[in-house]
Amino acid sequence: MRTTTAWQGTGNSTELKRATIERRELRDDDLAVRVDYCGVCHSDLHALHGLVGKPAAGMVPGHEFTGTVTEVGSAVTDFAVGDKVAVGTIIDSCGECDMCRAGQENYCAVSRVLTYGGPDPRDETARDGNVTKGGYSREYIVRSTFAYPLPEGIDAAAAAPLMCAGITVWEPLRAAGVGPGSKVAVVGLGGVGHMGVKLAAALGADVTVLSRTADKADDARALGASGLLLTNDDAQLAEASGRFDVILDTVSAPHDLAPLLQLLALDGTLYVLGVPLPTEVPLMLLTMGRRKLSSSGTGGRRGTAEMLAFAGEHGIAADVEVLPSTRVNDALDRLERGDVRYRFVLDMADLDAPAA
Amino acid sequence: MRTTTAWQGTGNSTELKRATIERRELRDDDLAVRVDYCGVCHSDLHALHGLVGKPAAGMVPGHEFTGTVTEVGSAVTDFAVGDKVAVGTIIDSCGECDMCRAGQENYCAVSRVLTYGGPDPRDETARDGNVTKGGYSREYIVRSTFAYPLPEGIDAAAAAPLMCAGITVWEPLRAAGVGPGSKVAVVGLGGVGHMGVKLAAALGADVTVLSRTADKADDARALGASGLLLTNDDAQLAEASGRFDVILDTVSAPHDLAPLLQLLALDGTLYVLGVPLPTEVPLMLLTMGRRKLSSSGTGGRRGTAEMLAFAGEHGIAADVEVLPSTRVNDALDRLERGDVRYRFVLDMADLDAPAA
Repeated sequence: MRTTTAWQGTGNSTELKRATIERRELRDDDLAVRVDYCGVCHSDLHALHGLVGKPAAGMVPGHEFTGTVTEVGSAVTDFAVGDKVAVGTIIDSCGECDMCRAGQENYCAVSRVLTYGGPDPRDETARDGNVTKGGYSREYIVRSTFAYPLPEGIDAAAAAPLMCAGITVWEPLRAAGVGPGSKVAVVGLGGVGHMGVKLAAALGADVTVLSRTADKADDARALGASGLLLTNDDAQLAEASGRFDVILDTVSAPHDLAPLLQLLALDGTLYVLGVPLPTEVPLMLLTMGRRKLSSSGTGGRRGTAEMLAFAGEHGIAADVEVLPSTRVNDALDRLERGDVRYRFVLDMADLDAPAA
Repeated sequence: MRTTTAWQGTGNSTELKRATIERRELRDDDLAVRVDYCGVCHSDLHALHGLVGKPAAGMVPGHEFTGTVTEVGSAVTDFAVGDKVAVGTIIDSCGECDMCRAGQENYCAVSRVLTYGGPDPRDETARDGNVTKGGYSREYIVRSTFAYPLPEGIDAAAAAPLMCAGITVWEPLRAAGVGPGSKVAVVGLGGVGHMGVKLAAALGADVTVLSRTADKADDARALGASGLLLTNDDAQLAEASGRFDVILDTVSAPHDLAPLLQLLALDGTLYVLGVPLPTEVPLMLLTMGRRKLSSSGTGGRRGTAEMLAFAGEHGIAADVEVLPSTRVNDALDRLERGDVRYRFVLDMADLDAPAA
């Protein structure tokens, strides 16, 4: 086993401390990646708060990062030392089930391995009660099939959030066939939501941001939306009834889905991406217009490669605030308060220096 | 105004009594239809029980009937006296909103008129506190655009349930693009469910009936299903996890949707057709596989015409038990107990005789 430096949870709060953690030695098909930039995702907060599973002491968050290949396993032919790569929310799967064969390894129910916080029976550092440790660290060991070449011309820091925030909106947009003529609404202009506006607009859709406050209207337009609809204005809501083919709901707290369902057009789909908790659904609102309620969980290898190619072609990345990784606790605190436009990205270079 | 004989509610139970009711005089674009056969739909029971709105004294149910044109308005050119026609769940709409323009008059939020139990501002017998009176009657006056020629070669009694049970499953099957290669499950083998099996199988899908009891297996196969899956057998459920592209849920009592959602394949859709009441939905089951929850409410003119053409071409109608209309109360009682294979149809000819 080898070691690296990371930002690690203490178990009872979101506070992270600098620590040395173990990484497995490279297998034949592995890459060692120096993590250059890692995005700070709202689900990192959920994980540290224990909303998904128990908050493990020793947790190292981080599942959207970009970096540089520093070593390759003996069987790796498609990556070389020095390559710039991106890694997302999953790092292994069975490869044989229906979901894996469909390129949706993110839904593999057999042996999907999460980038952090989940067991990996094939990795001695993440089994027997241990779990995978994420990208808030200086080095990550990943099976090469779950690393992706970073497209040329995209800033490596701004690209990191593509790997969770970006793919989270990309897959439902593609599944719903969004393109020119589509009317798309995005609820919640955060890390995920702002990627939804950018990608939907680049796909040719007419995009509207739904918000409780009008002060985001300029930002919405700058990101590519045609306008903003105030969700606490009954007249605006009524006028927009039946308007949207797709709604991406990225709000990260539980909320009433009824007002959103009423905005869907015939055969339209509301994708709940922020909080997939049990929720009461007024089915009659689905009946009237054959509307659909769905959700989506990041993406598989096929969609991720497709999204990165599209992002490269259209010059799309996240709007980020880059902080040295020593400020990770600030980033988490500010994210909790919604004080970010639109994604924090940690610059991991400071982990090379000795601890302060 | 003119009058006809009907089976009319008393207001506090499902018991119906023979009565004389008013019908409007023909407008220019109206047909007078002698009702020959009217299906008995589970929603007739819901309506009489007051599950949808208050149980109106004076209610005349019936929204799937076939009959014979006896008179046409002066502007009617596409129907003639003696034509066999079918009428379904709606009889008018605004004709101008997005839904009407899409051929989905069933979702017209401006001025959709229900075949029974709803107001019709343009009909003096169904306004000022009165409501439309349905097909449990000997004569119905309908705008000709909401009557459909009965396809040749289909029994007029067995065809009546196409107009509610049939179109209720046809539209979601078509919206989901069901065809050869599709895997479809039908939950609940009643009036609506058995039409789902027949139509999905005729579209080329591989159809499975989901049931709590194995004794319906032979019936399921006779209707066109390839087999039956026992929903109270955990091993069968687990094995079928992720199998179906479309599930038509026609159960007419509230129930847990989680076991059904787990059976959906990637991007699969569960259509809840039986009870569109508010229901708790475990959104995480939608997340894993980008599954969709939807519902659907009968159909519009375009879908209805398409469904009737398909039924004529494939010789598809309902499996019915025809009863003289004097036995309407028996039919409602037996339907409430689930004692029907698969749809009661009332033969209205006995209303020509004087009351007993």
